[in-house]
Amino acid sequence: MKKNINLGVIGCGTVGSSFIREFISKKEIIKEKIGIEINIVKVFDKDRNKLKTFKNIAAESPDEIIYDNEIDIVVELIGGTDYAYEFVKKSIENKKSVVTANKALISKYGEEIFNLAKEKNVYIGFEASVAGAIPIIKSLKESFIGNKITKIFGILNGTTNYILSEMFYKKIKFNEALDITKKLGYAEANPKLDICGLDTAHKILILSYICFGNFFSIDKINVEGIEKIEPVDITYADEFGYRIKLLGICKKEGNNIEIRVHPTLLPKNHLLSLVEGVNNAIYVEGDLIGKALFYGEGAGGKAASSSVISDVVDISKKIVSKNYITENFISYEKNYLKPFDEIETKYYFRFTAIDKPGVLAKISKILGDYNISISSVIQKKDNPQKAVPIIMLTHMAKEKNVKKAIEKINTLDVIKKETIMLRVEESLF
Amino acid sequence: MKKNINLGVIGCGTVGSSFIREFISKKEIIKEKIGIEINIVKVFDKDRNKLKTFKNIAAESPDEIIYDNEIDIVVELIGGTDYAYEFVKKSIENKKSVVTANKALISKYGEEIFNLAKEKNVYIGFEASVAGAIPIIKSLKESFIGNKITKIFGILNGTTNYILSEMFYKKIKFNEALDITKKLGYAEANPKLDICGLDTAHKILILSYICFGNFFSIDKINVEGIEKIEPVDITYADEFGYRIKLLGICKKEGNNIEIRVHPTLLPKNHLLSLVEGVNNAIYVEGDLIGKALFYGEGAGGKAASSSVISDVVDISKKIVSKNYITENFISYEKNYLKPFDEIETKYYFRFTAIDKPGVLAKISKILGDYNISISSVIQKKDNPQKAVPIIMLTHMAKEKNVKKAIEKINTLDVIKKETIMLRVEESLF
Repeated sequence: MKKNINLGVIGCGTVGSSFIREFISKKEIIKEKIGIEINIVKVFDKDRNKLKTFKNIAAESPDEIIYDNEIDIVVELIGGTDYAYEFVKKSIENKKSVVTANKALISKYGEEIFNLAKEKNVYIGFEASVAGAIPIIKSLKESFIGNKITKIFGILNGTTNYILSEMFYKKIKFNEALDITKKLGYAEANPKLDICGLDTAHKILILSYICFGNFFSIDKINVEGIEKIEPVDITYADEFGYRIKLLGICKKEGNNIEIRVHPTLLPKNHLLSLVEGVNNAIYVEGDLIGKALFYGEGAGGKAASSSVISDVVDISKKIVSKNYITENFISYEKNYLKPFDEIETKYYFRFTAIDKPGVLAKISKILGDYNISISSVIQKKDNPQKAVPIIMLTHMAKEKNVKKAIEKINTLDVIKKETIMLRVEESLF
Repeated sequence: MKKNINLGVIGCGTVGSSFIREFISKKEIIKEKIGIEINIVKVFDKDRNKLKTFKNIAAESPDEIIYDNEIDIVVELIGGTDYAYEFVKKSIENKKSVVTANKALISKYGEEIFNLAKEKNVYIGFEASVAGAIPIIKSLKESFIGNKITKIFGILNGTTNYILSEMFYKKIKFNEALDITKKLGYAEANPKLDICGLDTAHKILILSYICFGNFFSIDKINVEGIEKIEPVDITYADEFGYRIKLLGICKKEGNNIEIRVHPTLLPKNHLLSLVEGVNNAIYVEGDLIGKALFYGEGAGGKAASSSVISDVVDISKKIVSKNYITENFISYEKNYLKPFDEIETKYYFRFTAIDKPGVLAKISKILGDYNISISSVIQKKDNPQKAVPIIMLTHMAKEKNVKKAIEKINTLDVIKKETIMLRVEESLF
């Protein structure tokens, strides 16, 4: 029985270097626990400076890893979808298992990668691609295997959650909060992918695939970021008893799957509302588990390393026991992506209107015409000379109707600024 | 390659019957996912009535399951340590893997059972023994395998958490809350094991074993229940910004392991404070994961079934791939159980004293003598004729000193009732 496993690591940035360091320091304990010696035998990064610490195992090119017959597992930690896709594909073709933290890659090419891996009889580990150290992938695939999952949603991006926490506690604007977040190293130099919700979208697409067995294209789902959130919205949400969080949401009803990413008002006493800073949390509902929540560090080298190590160990065990069975989580059902316009939820509106009698009547009339009923209103009277905010919460309404109503309301002459519309999630719980 | 796995189930109560029902309904999906057909071929319960629904697979005696050469996995769901111990041991001796939800059994005989299983080359699944549907055992053993865990603690008993929630929200006494909990079916006819903290103790001992590799005897650890909690304590804790929860706590510092079970004051905004009703939650700290929390349904047939199914599937995969590697989580370190008197934490005291000048001075004097410093005091003045409560919070102090000080304070002539002492945990977070 094979008792040694060799790893090659491609990518030596924050996660890569942290993984190598942590893995080496834990190697002996892992060997004691599973009886397999796992060695990192080669490391590559296109930036040669990053390889200085690992001189004795530094590779000249990724091919030295991909085509090395002694290497069993390739750990891909470069991110992005161009080179990573090529390296991962070649590695699998060369009968290597792959461990990756790459959410963009898995959400875009997951189906192809998993099929190829099956064909080549190798394994793919991607626990680190969603929610850092939180073992959500393994829990869904293995621990909840007896469950019919119906809902999964959560705070999946640490950067945006940090920004929203800063805005809430310090009553500052988005840009100020972003600057602080950058200074602390919690946002990348170009944080666009995080802020505009795409990173969250990658992750919820992966979770949706594991729960429901179908991959959907990111172009087909609604993705909104947090750039438009203003401090006043956070304050008014607070007055109504809500916190604003950027959520990735996925639900299944019959054969319809609903996937969306947007800032969401959540009841203050909900566990997700208490998730602050760079932490992530994921809520899952299933027929046996009922409601479950996972909370933990969503980013950072150590958190990701914890998940990468776990995948490496799992796959090593599978390689050693040659005929190991792995889960097939492709759905045999035909599922459909629910058009975003068809979703139903509650809404938060912030109108900016001239403060004169009859304004509320005009707005309410249009909402009523579109079957949208109001649950509460705050009408601010601070400055009767100028336009004032009217904040409104609705009962359940259809996205399509809401969009049409808001479009019409925005054309009223009493409305002085584009209306802010956010979604409120209570029906999820 | 073997592609069929046969199960025998012993015990057909709430969990047993729920497991059989759920497993049968999910059998085909599981087969699709892992390519193994798993069948429940025999079921036994000493109460023949419980077998009526499963007539075609009912066994006459447990031996029919234990000695059946066709059965691969015995699912033990009778609970308790007498028969269960005998059945589990015999099953392993007959080379059967075992899945159990039995915390009393694992916490008492775990070491012996795991060693025997290793010797006989079979597997033991016990995910359902701690925190129902929450995949804490698998996460600690597999997902966090690269971590050095330093702390694990949580709400591990649904019955007592339900009672404490009722007392908090309805401002009712322990006995009234217990009656409601019983009526709703959330407490057993004899709920002693839950209320006095022993059930929580079984679970924290199992978690401690998985994290640190040593089993400690329940007789060696401090276990306190919630019987003594009065509504006033819940109210005063609330005034100070705390909730009272029954926690199982385990920490490791160097080679010292601290394990204890007691009602605990937790900051209101801590995630664990928001865990209401029969839910469970577990907080884990490790060197890579940082802080993580798992939340979910801690009791009930379905929640337990989710974990039992997961263990059955995992073990089936291991049996099919004959040379599968399993984790050895026995510690090679020598660890010591820290004596309870040596622990340090913050404390809550409720003194019942005559309301006259100088009382506080007398109490403070004794506390000072024992190196206990006060962080806040509320002195109630409602009824100067009678004894009034004095509520006090301390800074960090030693358990040993606190006990001695309270003993001495209780002998003061101004003290009219035995002092209530509870522990406050903030240093955990």
